[in-house]
Amino acid sequence: MPTSPAPEAPAYDDVVAAAEQIAGHAVTTPLLESPLLNEKLGGRLLVKAECLQRSGAFKFRGAYNRISRLGDEQRRAGVVAFSSGNHAQGVAMVAQMLGVPAVIVMPTDAPEIKLANTRAYGAEVVMYDRETESREEIGERLAAERKATLVPSYDDPLIIAGQGTVGLEIAAQAREMDARLDAVIAPCGGGGLISGCALALSEECPEARLFTAEPEGFDDTARSLAAGERVSNDKGAKTFCDALILPTPGVLTFSINQRLLAGGFALGDAETAGAMKAAFQYLKLVVEPGGAVALAAALTGAYDCKGKTVAVVCSGGNVDPGVFAAALGADKD
Amino acid sequence: MPTSPAPEAPAYDDVVAAAEQIAGHAVTTPLLESPLLNEKLGGRLLVKAECLQRSGAFKFRGAYNRISRLGDEQRRAGVVAFSSGNHAQGVAMVAQMLGVPAVIVMPTDAPEIKLANTRAYGAEVVMYDRETESREEIGERLAAERKATLVPSYDDPLIIAGQGTVGLEIAAQAREMDARLDAVIAPCGGGGLISGCALALSEECPEARLFTAEPEGFDDTARSLAAGERVSNDKGAKTFCDALILPTPGVLTFSINQRLLAGGFALGDAETAGAMKAAFQYLKLVVEPGGAVALAAALTGAYDCKGKTVAVVCSGGNVDPGVFAAALGADKD
Repeated sequence: MPTSPAPEAPAYDDVVAAAEQIAGHAVTTPLLESPLLNEKLGGRLLVKAECLQRSGAFKFRGAYNRISRLGDEQRRAGVVAFSSGNHAQGVAMVAQMLGVPAVIVMPTDAPEIKLANTRAYGAEVVMYDRETESREEIGERLAAERKATLVPSYDDPLIIAGQGTVGLEIAAQAREMDARLDAVIAPCGGGGLISGCALALSEECPEARLFTAEPEGFDDTARSLAAGERVSNDKGAKTFCDALILPTPGVLTFSINQRLLAGGFALGDAETAGAMKAAFQYLKLVVEPGGAVALAAALTGAYDCKGKTVAVVCSGGNVDPGVFAAALGADKD
Repeated sequence: MPTSPAPEAPAYDDVVAAAEQIAGHAVTTPLLESPLLNEKLGGRLLVKAECLQRSGAFKFRGAYNRISRLGDEQRRAGVVAFSSGNHAQGVAMVAQMLGVPAVIVMPTDAPEIKLANTRAYGAEVVMYDRETESREEIGERLAAERKATLVPSYDDPLIIAGQGTVGLEIAAQAREMDARLDAVIAPCGGGGLISGCALALSEECPEARLFTAEPEGFDDTARSLAAGERVSNDKGAKTFCDALILPTPGVLTFSINQRLLAGGFALGDAETAGAMKAAFQYLKLVVEPGGAVALAAALTGAYDCKGKTVAVVCSGGNVDPGVFAAALGADKD
């Protein structure tokens, strides 16, 4: 069987087309700010509240842009995805909305809320062991067996373009708020969100510098950007940012990120927990660990906001109560 | 000294004027929904996320509509307000934005976050004992001493009209979402929010029935509506809804509510804590106890959502971490 050629990287126009495709289905999430946080930072911080997106994370956008373009026969055969949880919920929710059967391959250690919601959206969940099994192999086998369409979590032109609508909205909302962006920072796992945003923002706000935020030990994109080639994370690394545990940058996403990003930041879990608490206190948002790393990059000074206008994406809010309470420092009597 | 005549109740046009006055200053908060909650309820539930408003509660709207209309001399003399916390923060924040000195009279048992934020917005805070002192007397004395303007927390035409912009937005956003509202429920303390919303919604969605939600033991408005006259709460009642602890409906607010509301619901604190948890889980919103009572009315079936389309206001999110963790059931190991 011949290998299929690598898909072509999407461009700005694909993000605009994605925005049309998802209009009326995805939430236009607000770009929020807190005068108290601005005062602390000595700059202007704009927070894209993507945790308020349908399914509780930006992943809905890419999933809708991908699945809603399937033909009738493909829809009947269904979709397969593998994901630690947010792409799982996004695909399951879109599939339910469009009447498409969905099978999702999820790790046994995924957060309870992500497993429960994926099932609640009507998807069949197949569990795998993160240490000993390959989710790619399981996903590809299931897709082949069922003639179903595999919906990748990031390395796909329509997925990237869909996530890029976050960047289009940031640009439009910042203009409405008379904010000229010096920088935009987004959480990065496989790189779908930041690469899509980069396609949008490099056209809309060419003066803004674009950065990834990753957990310490999972800063493969930051190190790959510095090295000029895709490098991997050490196997032993641990983080509570369950949404951002991936070994290597995507091929397609990195080809975009290498061209358009200024660099990346690595945040410790304690710093990220502090950002979750700040989002609770100042913005009234529930942000999950992996969703809070870009906010952490701004609040800790990893990116110095002084005198600057900076937008950060809070990319998801699917977090178990105990983890959230611990981040607030309120998990004990 | 002659008593000043009772101010005239505001009307629909005053709410429209308030919307113009606050445009570009207040956040147009999103109207959110969760397919999983809809499925549980067998209806359509739309949640006005007013906890995302500036200062973390709807109170910013009325405060801005009132204070931004003061003349130069009045602005220099400053403003005085008394409040358990959300009106305090709204007034303090607006005063800071407009360069107006502010003194806020707050109870000694106000939540830490509300005291800290009111001070952080630059206001002078004067504490009083809820059991033994009258905040009205202290506020009036301070205002007289400083020739400052007293900014009432609800019984004022401009305050009511400002809060009513929540209702205008609900009507417009529901139309955009193809939702025909059967009912709207809002938390009620003095009645400023629901009376303002009623002015807007009775014009914009005349078919929608309008309800208050109050904590058990503080359902003075519900009982006053039933009795046809203003009745008071028993002195001994307790609730964790600190924003809704008031003895009697306002004169002006009740005159509107009596004319336009269908009735009210009383919710136990455990029911309200359940609504806070649902907002965390399904909507990724931080909602304070007093902000969650209308959501609780929908989720508990106090208002039966089956087959209906219902909007509820989540009116604020200023809650201490320990109280929030307890509502999530995550305050212990």
